[in-house]
Amino acid sequence: MQPSHAPINPLISGMSGPPIPQAQVWAAGYDGSHGPLINLSQAVPGNPPHPDLLARLASAAGSADAARYGAIEGDMALRSAYADNLAETYGARFGPENVAITSGCNEAFAVAAMLVAQAGDSVIVPTPWYFNHQTTLSMMGITPIALPALAENGFVPRAEDAAALIGECTRAIALVTPNNPTGAIYPRETVAAFAQLCRERGIWLILDETYRDFIAGDEPPHALFRDEHWGANVIGLYSFSKSYAIPGHRLGAMTADRAIITQIAKILDNLQICPARAGQIAIAWAIPHLRDWRAQSRDDILSRAQVFRDAIGRHPGWTVETIGAFFAYLRHPFPGVDAVAVAERLARERGVLALPGSWFGPGQERYLRVAFANVATAQVAELGDRLGGF
Amino acid sequence: MQPSHAPINPLISGMSGPPIPQAQVWAAGYDGSHGPLINLSQAVPGNPPHPDLLARLASAAGSADAARYGAIEGDMALRSAYADNLAETYGARFGPENVAITSGCNEAFAVAAMLVAQAGDSVIVPTPWYFNHQTTLSMMGITPIALPALAENGFVPRAEDAAALIGECTRAIALVTPNNPTGAIYPRETVAAFAQLCRERGIWLILDETYRDFIAGDEPPHALFRDEHWGANVIGLYSFSKSYAIPGHRLGAMTADRAIITQIAKILDNLQICPARAGQIAIAWAIPHLRDWRAQSRDDILSRAQVFRDAIGRHPGWTVETIGAFFAYLRHPFPGVDAVAVAERLARERGVLALPGSWFGPGQERYLRVAFANVATAQVAELGDRLGGF
Repeated sequence: MQPSHAPINPLISGMSGPPIPQAQVWAAGYDGSHGPLINLSQAVPGNPPHPDLLARLASAAGSADAARYGAIEGDMALRSAYADNLAETYGARFGPENVAITSGCNEAFAVAAMLVAQAGDSVIVPTPWYFNHQTTLSMMGITPIALPALAENGFVPRAEDAAALIGECTRAIALVTPNNPTGAIYPRETVAAFAQLCRERGIWLILDETYRDFIAGDEPPHALFRDEHWGANVIGLYSFSKSYAIPGHRLGAMTADRAIITQIAKILDNLQICPARAGQIAIAWAIPHLRDWRAQSRDDILSRAQVFRDAIGRHPGWTVETIGAFFAYLRHPFPGVDAVAVAERLARERGVLALPGSWFGPGQERYLRVAFANVATAQVAELGDRLGGF
Repeated sequence: MQPSHAPINPLISGMSGPPIPQAQVWAAGYDGSHGPLINLSQAVPGNPPHPDLLARLASAAGSADAARYGAIEGDMALRSAYADNLAETYGARFGPENVAITSGCNEAFAVAAMLVAQAGDSVIVPTPWYFNHQTTLSMMGITPIALPALAENGFVPRAEDAAALIGECTRAIALVTPNNPTGAIYPRETVAAFAQLCRERGIWLILDETYRDFIAGDEPPHALFRDEHWGANVIGLYSFSKSYAIPGHRLGAMTADRAIITQIAKILDNLQICPARAGQIAIAWAIPHLRDWRAQSRDDILSRAQVFRDAIGRHPGWTVETIGAFFAYLRHPFPGVDAVAVAERLARERGVLALPGSWFGPGQERYLRVAFANVATAQVAELGDRLGGF
């Protein structure tokens, strides 16, 4: 029997539980008969951090300095190194005053949402959406407004569709590019159109680019930050977890106008005081020193994308709808069967763990999200065998 | 000229900035003429972590394992070790299912508040309050209701006063004992009376015991957790920052009923995914192994309390109103002068940084919060000289 409790916030009790652990239950039910589990569920780099980064993490964590509080907005060394990295990536000017370091990018999104919206407001989010964006908004009483990104458009949302959804209480549009879950990389024109729309309507563009270091080529992903007025309505989000293979150290970043960083610091002080220090110290070193390693990781992952296409191509009925940086969005061949059932069977019977599209918003029953970056190339290739006769 | 921005959440723009950096500006203006700065501002342990703990932190952070995501509620090893520590501290039964690990205790408070209340609700908080509790509630649109804890009662709040403040939308009472800022240690009868009141009125008691390891003696701080029904309306908060001298690793804990931990995990997944791993791995080891060191730290700090009393005792007009674990609450001798002016002058002219009572809520203009645990005994003694002729 459940003990009775004092009432809790209905926004929390009414919210569904974290999805990743649910998927892990399916995987735990796999008997191993087809070989080791191929875990394509969470966006986790398949490789360990560079050995020199591990050595830096160790020496930082072993220091009395890293045991002390740091600055609320993050260590100046990391803010500076990251500002330089931004400047290089986008061909634009950034200083440490444009950067706040967070305890991971989920926190960065929560802070961005809280900065621009309060309970009763709304934020437009393309569907399929990253489930934590939807739940984060909902738990704060902010309504996520679904903006359908359609398969026929390569899962790229359209600013003109968003325009029709902006209401009195809409405070922002939140985009993720390269996208989670679809992997779609939004064209620069799309990003520009959304920025323009947001500016015209006086709302914020929250741009989560957690996966940007995994885009092929060296062109800036978009030209937004070359507009000297970007700070008036753009907040950029980033994660160090994927690019440096350190999700366990919990480090993300927010990019914003100097005056907005000052406002962000108020929220960060309440939520985190400061991010964990050892990771900050080590990553400040890694940003300039691990350029080649990052490029190599990216190229490895991109090469897996082709292996993945080939593996799926052997099975008529399965379609790679989109594939980009880190994720592919896969259409399953069973009309009328919800992706949850497909994902559960695939995990339990074949030892392949992917997440059902249904967890990423309405209308996604035919899809699975596959984090192909998680596993070695040989495992990606083996996927082809695992799907045989399924 | 300020660039114009899209509008931000008025709950954030209307909130005052983080106070600690403001105080640091005063200290930066001190010319050193009275000797090195005596920094009594932030609750920071004066000692570095135990060398064995530093070694464990280094080896954990240097491992590929710590670079990976961990469980949302925290590593099982740390949850278990902390549950054992709770059992020992309170003489009651706890298991890992009663524990969630957070990225510091500020986050733990934010999560507790979000769990029990939403925008438009209220939480009763004794004044003087820990400023981050007030701002955290306010930024979420939750009204903090001030419950005056009076000097004549040793700054211990009274449940009967709280009873009169509970309204339709009140969801919780949040207590901090040992208290920040006053240092007052609430008698067990007081804690029991608040728990009883909360139970009768169907609201939560949020009990922040960040400083409990610094109480003299080995008696349990209260008997709350010996009541088998405590989980129905009590949430305990704790920080590893002070007891292990590791604020830079950002680790706190929440204690609650198993069913409530499941609800808490939903929020934690959105805010942190998991706490930073290296600290978790090292602290799971430290809890059972650094018992003696913790006791020694506590005794050192307690011995400083007497030195502090003696130093202040030399200056008529200055009064130690309360002194307990970590903090003392000091009454300054200047009627009609706000504590902000006193604290600023003390910092700039004498190199003594303490925080003005005015930052801890209404009616605190005559007080300064002194974190005497921060500095070595010799520095505490030197305080007496610094106040001479001030």
